[in-house]
Amino acid sequence: MSASYTIQPIGYLQSPYRQKFGVPRQPGLVDCEARLVLDKQFSGDSVRGLEAYSHLWLSFLFHQTVEQGWQPLVRPPRAGGNQKLGVFATRSSFRPNGLGLSVVELKGIELGKQVSLILSGVDLVDGTPIIDIKPYIPYADSQPQARADFAPAAPAMLAVHWRDAALQQAQQLQVADTERRVIEQVLAQDPRPAYHATDPNKRYGVWLYQWDIAFSVDENGVWIDSLELRP
Amino acid sequence: MSASYTIQPIGYLQSPYRQKFGVPRQPGLVDCEARLVLDKQFSGDSVRGLEAYSHLWLSFLFHQTVEQGWQPLVRPPRAGGNQKLGVFATRSSFRPNGLGLSVVELKGIELGKQVSLILSGVDLVDGTPIIDIKPYIPYADSQPQARADFAPAAPAMLAVHWRDAALQQAQQLQVADTERRVIEQVLAQDPRPAYHATDPNKRYGVWLYQWDIAFSVDENGVWIDSLELRP
Repeated sequence: MSASYTIQPIGYLQSPYRQKFGVPRQPGLVDCEARLVLDKQFSGDSVRGLEAYSHLWLSFLFHQTVEQGWQPLVRPPRAGGNQKLGVFATRSSFRPNGLGLSVVELKGIELGKQVSLILSGVDLVDGTPIIDIKPYIPYADSQPQARADFAPAAPAMLAVHWRDAALQQAQQLQVADTERRVIEQVLAQDPRPAYHATDPNKRYGVWLYQWDIAFSVDENGVWIDSLELRP
Repeated sequence: MSASYTIQPIGYLQSPYRQKFGVPRQPGLVDCEARLVLDKQFSGDSVRGLEAYSHLWLSFLFHQTVEQGWQPLVRPPRAGGNQKLGVFATRSSFRPNGLGLSVVELKGIELGKQVSLILSGVDLVDGTPIIDIKPYIPYADSQPQARADFAPAAPAMLAVHWRDAALQQAQQLQVADTERRVIEQVLAQDPRPAYHATDPNKRYGVWLYQWDIAFSVDENGVWIDSLELRP
């Protein structure tokens, strides 16, 4: 390699996804607000006119995995099942340069001491470093006819049920309605790895907002078994 | 800024656009082949399965301008005319981190000593360092309903005429038919900056392939005045 370039985050994302497990597999699947706080060097001028766009591209770094390197072949959890695909034929987070790309909805702009963008449909873990923002331009970016034989369709949604005990916990802890909706949408997508057989006795845990949520899956869908404040 | 990351090109693009002037303003406007040659460290494995996709995202570096830095406000040549917009509300090449993003068509994969991708619709200057390749996934990436009030529609095309002298030069120099078509398509988009008044006496030059092309514009469209082998 002849050249190398230095990249610095322009800001960091704040989202309810506090760990990789549970993050939606593509943007737009969960109707969940997130906040992108720009670095102090970026004034309101740097986003002037951005409100003319409903959708944005975020370029980001897979900061949790970038140090772990990459392999030429990966086994994507959904695309192609147990098939091994080339890293550049997937959106795997283990990739050269560790770059990610995500289209999100722009809901608002807050010009405070630091500029914040209010976003929706984000599929990024809390704390993700963002390295660029670009407007989504449909005439160039929208290619509905593109062929994508290995790409999954949007995942089928499972029904989500609260066990009585979990519902009581949610009420006692005053979990907000918007948070409950996000919890349900995240679980409806079935965050388990695709190769897991459904074992109704197996218990999974996911961390969303400040909540630790335990769930299990049977033929009737996802059961929320408990919801606790994360210590 | 707390963190910084090092990015290395995964390969370099070979295209007929030998200078910034004349490069299409968005991908997909000119039906022109380009070649992405991957670095030797990337074997055929790294692109296994890529042929299942008709379109790819290229992440790249605006290597010609990245050293020149950026300003919070830019005056995009088309979007909004003389309006100043925030750098993040544009696709300007003068931007923090100097990152670019482009959707291109995948026409073929050559597995030689180095892997090459044959691409079409590229809007990148020859020699552009590519830092990532991702498959285009329509269900996530295609947002035809996205609102983009400042974004231009595809530019109107001008008629393109060869002056007799230029046509003779093209014949003598044995310019290939595909090259002629690309030359015509590039000029049809009117590569002049948007604020230029049409002065039929003004002569412009553009460098495509190994050819130096002189042209002028009047109310009947673009006139190719001469075509010479670049010294």
